[in-house]
Amino acid sequence: MGVQRSPVKNPRSATAPAPARVTAEQMAKKQREISVSEFFTKNRHLLGFDSPRKALLTAVKEAVDNALDACEEAGIHPDIRVELRPVAGHEGVYTMAVEDNGPGIVKAQVPNIFGKLLYGSKFHRLRQSRGQQGIGISAAGMYGQLTTGRPVRIRSKAGPRAKSYEFTVRIDTSKNQPVSTEEEIDWEGKTQGTRVEIDLEGEFRRGQRSVGEFLKLVAVANPHVRLTFVDPEGETTIYEPGTDELPAETAEIKPHPHGVELGILQKMLQETGERTVALFLQREFSRVGPKVAKEICDTAKISERSRPKSIARDATIALKKAIDATRIMAPPASCIAPIGEDGIVQGLRKEVEADFYVSRTRGPVVYRGHPFQVEVGIAYGRPGDTLEQSDAGKIFEDEAKKKRRKQLAEEDLLAEADQPARLIRFANRVPLLFQQSACAITKAVIATNWRGYGLQQPRGALPVGPMVIFVHIASVWVPFTSESKEAIAHYDEIVRELRLALQECGRKLGTHIRKGRKLASEYKKREYISKYIPHIGIALQEILGLDDKKRDQCVAKLTDVLERSRKL
Amino acid sequence: MGVQRSPVKNPRSATAPAPARVTAEQMAKKQREISVSEFFTKNRHLLGFDSPRKALLTAVKEAVDNALDACEEAGIHPDIRVELRPVAGHEGVYTMAVEDNGPGIVKAQVPNIFGKLLYGSKFHRLRQSRGQQGIGISAAGMYGQLTTGRPVRIRSKAGPRAKSYEFTVRIDTSKNQPVSTEEEIDWEGKTQGTRVEIDLEGEFRRGQRSVGEFLKLVAVANPHVRLTFVDPEGETTIYEPGTDELPAETAEIKPHPHGVELGILQKMLQETGERTVALFLQREFSRVGPKVAKEICDTAKISERSRPKSIARDATIALKKAIDATRIMAPPASCIAPIGEDGIVQGLRKEVEADFYVSRTRGPVVYRGHPFQVEVGIAYGRPGDTLEQSDAGKIFEDEAKKKRRKQLAEEDLLAEADQPARLIRFANRVPLLFQQSACAITKAVIATNWRGYGLQQPRGALPVGPMVIFVHIASVWVPFTSESKEAIAHYDEIVRELRLALQECGRKLGTHIRKGRKLASEYKKREYISKYIPHIGIALQEILGLDDKKRDQCVAKLTDVLERSRKL
Repeated sequence: MGVQRSPVKNPRSATAPAPARVTAEQMAKKQREISVSEFFTKNRHLLGFDSPRKALLTAVKEAVDNALDACEEAGIHPDIRVELRPVAGHEGVYTMAVEDNGPGIVKAQVPNIFGKLLYGSKFHRLRQSRGQQGIGISAAGMYGQLTTGRPVRIRSKAGPRAKSYEFTVRIDTSKNQPVSTEEEIDWEGKTQGTRVEIDLEGEFRRGQRSVGEFLKLVAVANPHVRLTFVDPEGETTIYEPGTDELPAETAEIKPHPHGVELGILQKMLQETGERTVALFLQREFSRVGPKVAKEICDTAKISERSRPKSIARDATIALKKAIDATRIMAPPASCIAPIGEDGIVQGLRKEVEADFYVSRTRGPVVYRGHPFQVEVGIAYGRPGDTLEQSDAGKIFEDEAKKKRRKQLAEEDLLAEADQPARLIRFANRVPLLFQQSACAITKAVIATNWRGYGLQQPRGALPVGPMVIFVHIASVWVPFTSESKEAIAHYDEIVRELRLALQECGRKLGTHIRKGRKLASEYKKREYISKYIPHIGIALQEILGLDDKKRDQCVAKLTDVLERSRKL
Repeated sequence: MGVQRSPVKNPRSATAPAPARVTAEQMAKKQREISVSEFFTKNRHLLGFDSPRKALLTAVKEAVDNALDACEEAGIHPDIRVELRPVAGHEGVYTMAVEDNGPGIVKAQVPNIFGKLLYGSKFHRLRQSRGQQGIGISAAGMYGQLTTGRPVRIRSKAGPRAKSYEFTVRIDTSKNQPVSTEEEIDWEGKTQGTRVEIDLEGEFRRGQRSVGEFLKLVAVANPHVRLTFVDPEGETTIYEPGTDELPAETAEIKPHPHGVELGILQKMLQETGERTVALFLQREFSRVGPKVAKEICDTAKISERSRPKSIARDATIALKKAIDATRIMAPPASCIAPIGEDGIVQGLRKEVEADFYVSRTRGPVVYRGHPFQVEVGIAYGRPGDTLEQSDAGKIFEDEAKKKRRKQLAEEDLLAEADQPARLIRFANRVPLLFQQSACAITKAVIATNWRGYGLQQPRGALPVGPMVIFVHIASVWVPFTSESKEAIAHYDEIVRELRLALQECGRKLGTHIRKGRKLASEYKKREYISKYIPHIGIALQEILGLDDKKRDQCVAKLTDVLERSRKL
């Protein structure tokens, strides 16, 4: 560290200009390191643990995110079970359990993953995943410990023939270090997977921003997932997968040179194992081949063969300027896996009964060197409104289905016809339930002119109508506005893509709505005319002195003409 | 840590149910610790370093906060100099320097304070100060290093006879550790103090949310401070103090029992040096005497003499319940120092030329065991509107003053008469410039019914009028919505106090406005009547056949009557 320390002499003379209340020495004695766990214990609202209601949801969210990430990385079709059980004798305390069929966790890693904030595998790589910070699940455990004094319990089994272990993990918040126990157990009937249990203070509710809604939205954006939810009253909801296909495997990419900052470049030059600057540029960045490396070195007036460690600050600045001035291909999009237009419609169909579905996946684009993709889906119109009663009856025959129907109605995603559209936001397939108004997605939806697509839209508000607007951003690094990952920051590139995708879907929706209106007005006209045909028949009968048979023939003919001329 | 680690055997059999892309072992190899510096480098928007413009302001803010805290703790009248200099040859790069006359910093602490995130003296204590997290100034240095590759430079001198030292400090972000150099220097003309210099990418602007505005607002909320600002164009602005009084010295308090959470109580019981629970309760918390301690122990059915370390989890839960059920005096307010009603008006007068000033400091209240106080001030009406030209001329005689006047007009705090009121927000005397709409203060101002006080107020918006609304929250722990400390979270207790203080000021403002209106309408009537008095004189002359003298007498008499009867 190169710091020389020696006692300071004569720190304050007797004739100091002002009578000191506290001296620099006294202040120095109070200086100390703050562990990141202490910091987030005190500031836990930053992580989404501000109220018991939100804390319960945040804990479920973090555990489900981790389970899904692990399954997908291991190429396993996720089968996730979420349980919430009230703890007997302690009002407002729940046990949350999340169990997956994933690859399990290596024993030595369990304590760190669950008992240390800022620990994980996803922070340092550039590849799409739900988790990205290494804070979530350990923060949930810390919150549980804070409010109930109980450690996190983890079970893990790495495969059919592997042993099962059970761990308890606490966080020593002063040191941000785990304190754990482990033992081998018999995990009956389990082939492989991980189970996390956290006792925590919480408040269980249904409806908007509830655990139930969160899981339903997970099912929408992840049609490959099987989800089981057992709520505190013991009711079980199962979301079956709508597809056999796993999301495309994503590759880890190197950073793109155009996103690098001076300080980072300096650090990379110092830390690289490459012998020359040309090799450093080619191997530590994506989209830099020998030709581009040469061009950058030439522009910066640095020899391609310079040793990276020997590049001084001024030369680094020149190198950075040269990188920015060089045309370099956009980064590969293999690191991100959008849901896809079919996947979005599958997901929406599965959980939203609507009349019309449309979706759009835009191509990959770059911000700050990170590729990202925007997707929009819309479900519009309540089919129940036109279904005949008998059909509706058939659909909801058995008890289980009826119950499910009731629950769906309770948490129905489709807005009422005279209400603002329901906006559902996702980042890397994770539903975002809070801070809607602070989110770039919301701004983009509001900024879109929905009137042009035949919808009502009050100034500065969401459009009105029986619809769900689904928006997904997939990226290797989603720029959230806070650690609790609730809203996306306003990057111009992102907002632009959002608007384009929304407009493309909006145009298609507009065509559908106009067609529907035409249809409706046609029905109305026909109904109107057919109502008067018998009267015309009677009038003709009187005027022309027809008999009843002739009259009926005339009415039939008029009806026939009407039907042929106003075909629908 | 009690973790036993052994290799996992048979992690995945050959007949695993799904072809794994990645195994638990491969995942485990990628798991690693993330340093808090790395985390905040990547997430630097969380700390207020998202755009060059905001970054410049945030850096100045952090340095000024630290300087003021140090001076006040040492009982020194702060004299702070802020310089922004463009760095020659590097467009968009500035050197920020903040120099104080404080107590200096002990040599051994300099590297940690400036080169380590989450390090400081203010996090663990309960006492009002501007800084509270130990992140700010090191994050500013880290941002400087990231964007310019240059270390932070610090000079420090602890008193007239102490030696002066100059340090350079870098952060090793992978480890969150400082890398520093130091040397003794001759700091000519300096008695004592600290000077911090950071080179950073920034954008300098004037007007709202600028460095200039920030410093002006600092001067408003800190009338005891002398502030000098040299902007990048070399223009110097000096804010002279408006009072000799330093803010009251604040005391550090123990946490209040009603704010403690189970996990924290558990930790405190384990870590205390006290031998009995009764002593533990009395010495580790505020407002617990022997009687209250006994009451708590009795309710919890714990012996007062139990050893704290021996209290099991169930007993801890009982203890927590007993604490919550016991009436305990509110925490002492000695830990907070509000600006005071006089101080607020002094500060406003100094920087806002208005017609009417009012302020209100509410008594201390508690949320989550932390005392806080709310203060509101209002400056209303533009006096220039009634001042005669000659007077205005006299005020702005010399060139320097004229220039200052021009600058003041540019950054005038008083809103135009037809514009929404200007809301200026402060937490622990620090101006909050961003995220106004997300702040509890804004919500409280909007929720106040200003129409009742004679002002216009559109629905869901700030009142309209030539006014500044000053709101200050002083607390040992301000609940900010993010690390960048830009907005205050919506705690019910805080919002309630805010509304009461706003209403009290609003009522006084209402009286003033009504008086003004009455005055104005009186003037109008008088003007109207006096305009017609001569005509009445002429009419009387004709009717009664008076001579000119009599007529003039009559007019004089009528004028006299008018003046006496409609006294203003």
